[in-house]
Amino acid sequence: MIKVGIVGGTGYTGVELLRILAVHPEVQVSCITSRSEAGMPVADMYPNLRGHYDLAFSEPDASVLKACDLVFFATPHGVAMRMVPELMAAGVRVVDLSADFRLKDLDVWADWYGMQHETPEWNERAVYGLPEVAREVIKEAQLVANPGCYPTAVQLGFLPLLENGLVDPGRLIADAKSGASGAGRQGKIGVLHGEIGESFKAYGASGHRHLPEIRQGLTDAASGRVGVTFVPHLLPMIRGIEATLYAEIKNTADFERLQELFESRYRDEPFVDVMPYGSHPETRSVRGANQCRMALHRQEDSNIVIVSSVIDNLVKGAAGQAVQNMNIMFGMKETQGLEAPALLP
Amino acid sequence: MIKVGIVGGTGYTGVELLRILAVHPEVQVSCITSRSEAGMPVADMYPNLRGHYDLAFSEPDASVLKACDLVFFATPHGVAMRMVPELMAAGVRVVDLSADFRLKDLDVWADWYGMQHETPEWNERAVYGLPEVAREVIKEAQLVANPGCYPTAVQLGFLPLLENGLVDPGRLIADAKSGASGAGRQGKIGVLHGEIGESFKAYGASGHRHLPEIRQGLTDAASGRVGVTFVPHLLPMIRGIEATLYAEIKNTADFERLQELFESRYRDEPFVDVMPYGSHPETRSVRGANQCRMALHRQEDSNIVIVSSVIDNLVKGAAGQAVQNMNIMFGMKETQGLEAPALLP
Amino acid sequence: MIKVGIVGGTGYTGVELLRILAVHPEVQVSCITSRSEAGMPVADMYPNLRGHYDLAFSEPDASVLKACDLVFFATPHGVAMRMVPELMAAGVRVVDLSADFRLKDLDVWADWYGMQHETPEWNERAVYGLPEVAREVIKEAQLVANPGCYPTAVQLGFLPLLENGLVDPGRLIADAKSGASGAGRQGKIGVLHGEIGESFKAYGASGHRHLPEIRQGLTDAASGRVGVTFVPHLLPMIRGIEATLYAEIKNTADFERLQELFESRYRDEPFVDVMPYGSHPETRSVRGANQCRMALHRQEDSNIVIVSSVIDNLVKGAAGQAVQNMNIMFGMKETQGLEAPALLP
Amino acid sequence: MIKVGIVGGTGYTGVELLRILAVHPEVQVSCITSRSEAGMPVADMYPNLRGHYDLAFSEPDASVLKACDLVFFATPHGVAMRMVPELMAAGVRVVDLSADFRLKDLDVWADWYGMQHETPEWNERAVYGLPEVAREVIKEAQLVANPGCYPTAVQLGFLPLLENGLVDPGRLIADAKSGASGAGRQGKIGVLHGEIGESFKAYGASGHRHLPEIRQGLTDAASGRVGVTFVPHLLPMIRGIEATLYAEIKNTADFERLQELFESRYRDEPFVDVMPYGSHPETRSVRGANQCRMALHRQEDSNIVIVSSVIDNLVKGAAGQAVQNMNIMFGMKETQGLEAPALLP
Repeated sequence: MIKVGIVGGTGYTGVELLRILAVHPEVQVSCITSRSEAGMPVADMYPNLRGHYDLAFSEPDASVLKACDLVFFATPHGVAMRMVPELMAAGVRVVDLSADFRLKDLDVWADWYGMQHETPEWNERAVYGLPEVAREVIKEAQLVANPGCYPTAVQLGFLPLLENGLVDPGRLIADAKSGASGAGRQGKIGVLHGEIGESFKAYGASGHRHLPEIRQGLTDAASGRVGVTFVPHLLPMIRGIEATLYAEIKNTADFERLQELFESRYRDEPFVDVMPYGSHPETRSVRGANQCRMALHRQEDSNIVIVSSVIDNLVKGAAGQAVQNMNIMFGMKETQGLEAPALLP
Repeated sequence: MIKVGIVGGTGYTGVELLRILAVHPEVQVSCITSRSEAGMPVADMYPNLRGHYDLAFSEPDASVLKACDLVFFATPHGVAMRMVPELMAAGVRVVDLSADFRLKDLDVWADWYGMQHETPEWNERAVYGLPEVAREVIKEAQLVANPGCYPTAVQLGFLPLLENGLVDPGRLIADAKSGASGAGRQGKIGVLHGEIGESFKAYGASGHRHLPEIRQGLTDAASGRVGVTFVPHLLPMIRGIEATLYAEIKNTADFERLQELFESRYRDEPFVDVMPYGSHPETRSVRGANQCRMALHRQEDSNIVIVSSVIDNLVKGAAGQAVQNMNIMFGMKETQGLEAPALLP
Repeated sequence: MIKVGIVGGTGYTGVELLRILAVHPEVQVSCITSRSEAGMPVADMYPNLRGHYDLAFSEPDASVLKACDLVFFATPHGVAMRMVPELMAAGVRVVDLSADFRLKDLDVWADWYGMQHETPEWNERAVYGLPEVAREVIKEAQLVANPGCYPTAVQLGFLPLLENGLVDPGRLIADAKSGASGAGRQGKIGVLHGEIGESFKAYGASGHRHLPEIRQGLTDAASGRVGVTFVPHLLPMIRGIEATLYAEIKNTADFERLQELFESRYRDEPFVDVMPYGSHPETRSVRGANQCRMALHRQEDSNIVIVSSVIDNLVKGAAGQAVQNMNIMFGMKETQGLEAPALLP
Repeated sequence: MIKVGIVGGTGYTGVELLRILAVHPEVQVSCITSRSEAGMPVADMYPNLRGHYDLAFSEPDASVLKACDLVFFATPHGVAMRMVPELMAAGVRVVDLSADFRLKDLDVWADWYGMQHETPEWNERAVYGLPEVAREVIKEAQLVANPGCYPTAVQLGFLPLLENGLVDPGRLIADAKSGASGAGRQGKIGVLHGEIGESFKAYGASGHRHLPEIRQGLTDAASGRVGVTFVPHLLPMIRGIEATLYAEIKNTADFERLQELFESRYRDEPFVDVMPYGSHPETRSVRGANQCRMALHRQEDSNIVIVSSVIDNLVKGAAGQAVQNMNIMFGMKETQGLEAPALLP
């Protein structure tokens, strides 16, 4: 049984961490902080948790956090960065669900997040927590940068192609669509039901913060420069990301072995499911579950590989992956607390 | 570990049983039947189950079913009625999620379901499986009639009022609203997304099959005749029922003790949550969970008691309650397999 | 051609007024005010209006408004009340879509709206603009209080019963459901897509501002005290209100003539449609249209009359009814600009 | 005033034609046929039309259709093809909303539609009715093949790029998303609310019938072979298509003049709106309106042109474009009956 703290628990990632950890047999949530809601029982804000937690939100208190084995940050960017050194010094391990430690190039980070990074020394030591790529390093990490939602869906879909050098790395396109929970739980007009319901649009088409994160991951996979275009879109639904990926295969003869290549790449991965060739993964097939499902397509004799990849943005795209990372870090069974099937319909 | 069979597993209640049982530690699903889909792996029809079941749908086969400890019927009405005697004779226990054994008055049943009941002797012995009312009898029952979705939400909300004789039993109104999954998974125009999305309407306002079931339960609770008006409505969403109940209190002084009365009535019930007075239960607070949440209201100095009661129609209104009944019948922990919080948002 | 001004045009009622007036052949919108968005072209905020208006939001300017023939107020309560005297003095006619002039009893108004009314003399002269009740007075009115959305759906459904004294006026129940656009266009967490989507709940069940407005209208119709319980609910969709109304008929023999009574009451009303007995009006059948559709039901031999009444909350429940009132006030064809069928599907 | 007939009016395109034509001042709908629903008043099936039409569905009757000036076909493929010769002989003009006359290469047509074309002589004479490309020919056409929904959104977005030879025609990608009304109004499980709601997926990713239609149109625009990848997706909403288009610019210096090029290409088009550079068109901004809105994007120094293009699949993607074609064919004002703004929110 480990003791876990959550910093910034009022958003959708916070409640999702609580939902998942409620059935995790080896974890006790010992505190959840929120400046604005300090004193309010979590079950008053999130009635699905009635009967599951007696916990109330509390002011962030370093002494309490330092008594935890692990602290999750579910905060806006800029918060974890400042609090991490003190926790690190105290030997606490951290999984940061924000973007503070995801980019190795801090100039790029400053450009996209509009501030200077204040703890570059910890940024350097942080491990980018995509278990399908970095499981061994995560085991030993003290500080894990939990990947963004889009980057998770996009990287997992492209990885087998790039790692094997099968496609032109300069011509990658990721057309991604996300449910509205990805925009968080703040009172902004753009995410009102009246604005999002029954409508669909692209956003950030000229540039989105997840683009440099995707590019960094794909560059590593390709062991070289990549050219990637990434356009996110907003779906009139709550949970789920689908990314349709397009890449130009170098040698069309390779089409024949793609399916097997993907299957073998992910055979031992508990949370990546390569569906039969020509399938169409639905976001609902992963709703509430820590899963990525994907499938391959080709149109007639085209040289374009099409990959459709789905996740739940709040689970494999955030809180579920964070728990998966925690499991890995503490030597627990990797699927602990993450075993329930998705909610369908 | 008990062996369980499911007859008629292709509908939404079927997949929901599978979803719940996937994480139940004391149950093994040994067969799931479907004439139309025999041979198809369940995970092909319901991709959320990929990795959880190797099972395929099979033709109904009496010998296989008779080897089960328990059989769930998730069939249209008229099916369980005919198959039950053979299973009973073999000592198999049954939880029937259809309406075949819910009504004690078989003339009423015949009127509403358009056929004669063929096994009245078993209907007589069937136990109406609302655990909050009949737990002790369910323990010993061989045949349990699992309550309908609306009747569950409506009865639980009215019970404390009627059992204590606090309201006029002749003036009960239940205005209920259900997500579209309650209409099942059949290719009918009325339940197309294009017909249901972004719209709302009453249906069955002149009479619905759940009316006699509700009336029967409330009559028992009131120990006498009741007059109840029940109007169901169709919500543009998938899961969830909310019932707003109206009753005329006999003595307005009783308003003061209503909250405590409700709390004490359900204090030991693991799956009924009486929220603070004046709360507004949301259907999402029970999505995917075997919970009924309810709250009380009064407008100014009115003599009308208002109860708002919510369930997930597929869980506490169907598959979850069926598993709860199974747990009770086999002496397992009643909450086994039903402990995860609802999926919110 | 009349000149029209709109005060407070950034909300959903404001854009709906613009949408409707865009095709009204006898109206020119000469100004639309918004303090917060002054200078922004309306088509930048509402791209559906691109190509229809060159207009930009402007600071409220009394001299411009006083040059209008009619001014619509689409403001929060408390605004119209203060601006009306100056406009009245200038001979401008006003349709106020807010609640400022809806209640004749200003003590009640102060209780529900949390402020003292500042222009009681104008409140006295204001005409409650439900054309089906007050058409003749509206013709001559200088100041029209446009009814609330719920009150429109509820009153129209109850009117024929109460005007004819057929039901017990002390036992009226209105269970009403509204799409989320009724909550307006402000950045509040409660109306985020992530909070409202795929969920349903009652709200204001212990008391809602539309209750006194409904009570006032029904009292007039019944020519005496009424007892009415009103519970609003929030639908996971954008537009539409359905109200299911319950009343106890005094003489069950009257059931036979109810349908004809309703039909004859509304025969000459262009915007009220009494559907065949036993129909289930859908909110989508009035989406975008200035229509109220309703139908009657009875369950078996019950003495409860059930009326289901639907409107689009932004049209017959707000902007459409306001334009209808304008048409009446200025002697235009009452259906002018309001003739297009609803958008279905 | 012209007389119009509609063959196959029970689907969503049929009711949309009726909705639009209800306010068209120069058209009288004299018949609407449906074998399955003959005798049923259209307003019984589509209550939004109550008060607008007295018409009932009728058996297809050649003599009645031949008395029309124009017949719309809103039928499955294979129907118009067989009925057209008789109507042509009678001098009736036809706008076919099905796919029967859209492809010039009838071998390709036979491959995708699974039958041999039976009236190739009429296929040859048919005009592909995209007014932005073929207005002059449409004026004189007796038989117009109304474009598909996806092909409309995709072609309009790519046209200025291809007509001017600015992009590599061999590397076009169209990632398109459609509301569920595009799947029609038939009782199929795949389009149930319970299957589509709150979920998102690609479909037809290995090949969709609109691919050859898109390829044909783009080939014409490029005056040469094109390589286009087209992946459609299913949105959990009713109306609206968004297509995100990707093309590789040959000369990045051309980026500077793209916006102006698009604006000048569509300056005189009443139904194409080029939004400011970097905008994100929303499908709701065209809901119910015969509009295509589009905007351009570029990511940093990439050589990929991104175009986001939206239409309402039932309007500019079907019935609205059909009425636009009718207006052109009969020398009416092209925007007649199509002037109302979109329904937002």
